[in-house]
Amino acid sequence: MENGTSTAPKKWSFKGNEALTKASATSIRTVLMNIMGKIDPRDPRPTIPLGHGDPSAFPCFRTTPVAEDAIADAVRSAKFNGYALQQVGIPPARRAIADYLSKDLPYKLSSEDVYVTLGCGQAIEVILTVLARPNANILLPRPGFFLYEIRAAYCQLEVRHFDLLPEKGWEVDLDAVEALADENTAAIVIINPGNPCGNVFTHQHLKKVAETARKLGILVISDEVYDHLTFGSNPFVPMGVFGSIAPVITVGSISKRWIVPGWRLGWLVTNDPNGILKEYGIVDCIKGCVDISADPPTFIQGAVPHILEKTKDDHFSKIVNILRETADICYSKIEEIPCITCPSKPEGSMFVMVKLNLSLLENIEDDIDFSLQLAKEESVVVLPGVVVGLKNWLRITFAIDPASLEDGLGRVKAFCERHAKKQQVEKTSSSI
Amino acid sequence: MENGTSTAPKKWSFKGNEALTKASATSIRTVLMNIMGKIDPRDPRPTIPLGHGDPSAFPCFRTTPVAEDAIADAVRSAKFNGYALQQVGIPPARRAIADYLSKDLPYKLSSEDVYVTLGCGQAIEVILTVLARPNANILLPRPGFFLYEIRAAYCQLEVRHFDLLPEKGWEVDLDAVEALADENTAAIVIINPGNPCGNVFTHQHLKKVAETARKLGILVISDEVYDHLTFGSNPFVPMGVFGSIAPVITVGSISKRWIVPGWRLGWLVTNDPNGILKEYGIVDCIKGCVDISADPPTFIQGAVPHILEKTKDDHFSKIVNILRETADICYSKIEEIPCITCPSKPEGSMFVMVKLNLSLLENIEDDIDFSLQLAKEESVVVLPGVVVGLKNWLRITFAIDPASLEDGLGRVKAFCERHAKKQQVEKTSSSI
Repeated sequence: MENGTSTAPKKWSFKGNEALTKASATSIRTVLMNIMGKIDPRDPRPTIPLGHGDPSAFPCFRTTPVAEDAIADAVRSAKFNGYALQQVGIPPARRAIADYLSKDLPYKLSSEDVYVTLGCGQAIEVILTVLARPNANILLPRPGFFLYEIRAAYCQLEVRHFDLLPEKGWEVDLDAVEALADENTAAIVIINPGNPCGNVFTHQHLKKVAETARKLGILVISDEVYDHLTFGSNPFVPMGVFGSIAPVITVGSISKRWIVPGWRLGWLVTNDPNGILKEYGIVDCIKGCVDISADPPTFIQGAVPHILEKTKDDHFSKIVNILRETADICYSKIEEIPCITCPSKPEGSMFVMVKLNLSLLENIEDDIDFSLQLAKEESVVVLPGVVVGLKNWLRITFAIDPASLEDGLGRVKAFCERHAKKQQVEKTSSSI
Repeated sequence: MENGTSTAPKKWSFKGNEALTKASATSIRTVLMNIMGKIDPRDPRPTIPLGHGDPSAFPCFRTTPVAEDAIADAVRSAKFNGYALQQVGIPPARRAIADYLSKDLPYKLSSEDVYVTLGCGQAIEVILTVLARPNANILLPRPGFFLYEIRAAYCQLEVRHFDLLPEKGWEVDLDAVEALADENTAAIVIINPGNPCGNVFTHQHLKKVAETARKLGILVISDEVYDHLTFGSNPFVPMGVFGSIAPVITVGSISKRWIVPGWRLGWLVTNDPNGILKEYGIVDCIKGCVDISADPPTFIQGAVPHILEKTKDDHFSKIVNILRETADICYSKIEEIPCITCPSKPEGSMFVMVKLNLSLLENIEDDIDFSLQLAKEESVVVLPGVVVGLKNWLRITFAIDPASLEDGLGRVKAFCERHAKKQQVEKTSSSI
């Protein structure tokens, strides 16, 4: 009835921007959704999620009541129902984050150094958008985190990859960095503690990264979303310690240390005691970008001071102790699987990268095929390495409860045994 | 000490994207911050904020406890601490929003039509980003809402303005729309109930907008963030009613009706019973864009069904009754001020546009100058019309508590009397 009054146009004249469809096709979520789609709903066993780093669903990883109370109190206070007049973040939240991060630095951050963002993801989006200019390029680690790739591609910032070296505990290949950079290089990105490798950079190595950046005239973007989640020999050292060698922008959030990735509370922080980022206009552009972007809910910002200041050490040590235990389980279980190699035991974050030896497997084409078949047969989800830049590797998270992890890796072992090359099995049997 | 090992580069090679600094300079927040900077801190009177639409700070506008409880319960349930696997929104939130909006439509929306966004602002960002392609243009109302202008400029979507006609109750100048559109026009934007004009479009006028869109082959973006906030003769009619005439995308949020703009919970909804948006690839692009954008906190999404389904009518009628009262106060107080004219009494939203007659004022250059001097002398904040596209008009909100509104408009009157042109005052006196 409503459409009876005029004829349809020959052709509607709108069309979508296809770069967006392309960008999302390679996101971790899209890939994981495809893999999860293979799980047999008739399998009575629970699905074991080793594909993404979110242990919040497991009771042993539940966040502290301090954080939950802070949110409930903030929302009930009715003080934070309105718009935040300051799009960069409300002053008490900025101050609390500056104080929290300054504890690990040789200088004190000011509130002005802190921009409150919608999780670490929006902080990444902001800094890449700020640096995107015609011909500019950025150096990203391989393996790395997909959001940098997607966002850089979308804002037409050229990406150049340097390797992380598995034989050197996943340190940055600094010679490659020097060879890749030119006068249009704006920044180098590092992720420490490492996603996807589970490594933790030493003080000495981070200093070398800063010195290389200084030599090349570029800034360092240090993704520290897994800050303090370390359980090996190297302690967590924030890159901001070297902010006077080269300007450093850190991105982080409460997502990982407090196990609340769904709360979407993060930050972007300038660690730049020499004021170079201000001098070169980066600070104004960050403000501009944040000003035209959606900001985190005001009441979550209102809860930040309480969360950062009142959380007790026992919460943090509980989380690190479970991760230490599950990293141990993960490493020793993988050692029992011939076709999967782990170059080094994870010492931080929630992940480890392991290499597939496809020559030992029958009818498995590559890492994607491995992940799809594994999901179908064993209801275990792992992330194909190609999504993070390393074909025929896998990214496995150990941030799930210990019993589920043992169960999941047991199923991976069974799967690999079932798919082991026949002649080898025969050879082995005949040689006994 | 840390920087002793290498010399500084001659020149750092990063630089920010200046489009960002430019984009934010004209945001309402930036303009309001400048105006608020003029307020004399020694003025013992309270500042009266008539510049932006956020009454949440006034006790009479406090949100319902139903909404506060829903958030607190969601966060304490520990069910929503993790990532939302579906970046488009968690299924219960999508379903609840579809049901809520379907109540006013002649057909039923499905969950798949709904994308949960970080406030209405992110919904605007998403749809403009989706439509931005080389040479594409979009038709925006004048006066309008700054975020459309800023976001379109930033994604290089060409903007063409049609007028809203004050003498016709701020209806769309449909002849102008037809004259402006060409084969590269993707969409027309309307805001109903109107920001900044406070008008409410009739069923008949909305149908004409849809028919014009159909004739031109373009889609309608209807900003309904003030849905149901009407208190005059025209009821609120959602544009989706005409979705079978031309495809309609509505954007909205709980910000205004629940008085919680800081909660940042909004939506983008396709109202398209004929499936044209899917056929033309717009749906895939929306998914792609949402997939690479930051998503709203999971626990807020978790609270949405409870908020939408359990809020009682007395909350809504309380809010509408206060707005009706303050709209009356606003209109009658402004009638007493000779140099300010209000073309029609506001019947919806939280704003009214009023025209300055500068010829009656001494030493006031324009609307910006008026706003700055008013803030300085009277601690009253109003928004210069130029920010919303009409020079020498003002946008005034009446969404504050009645006593403060009377106080504020009394001060505006005193300001205008003090600045009235001398000769006129003399003429008037001499003629007595």
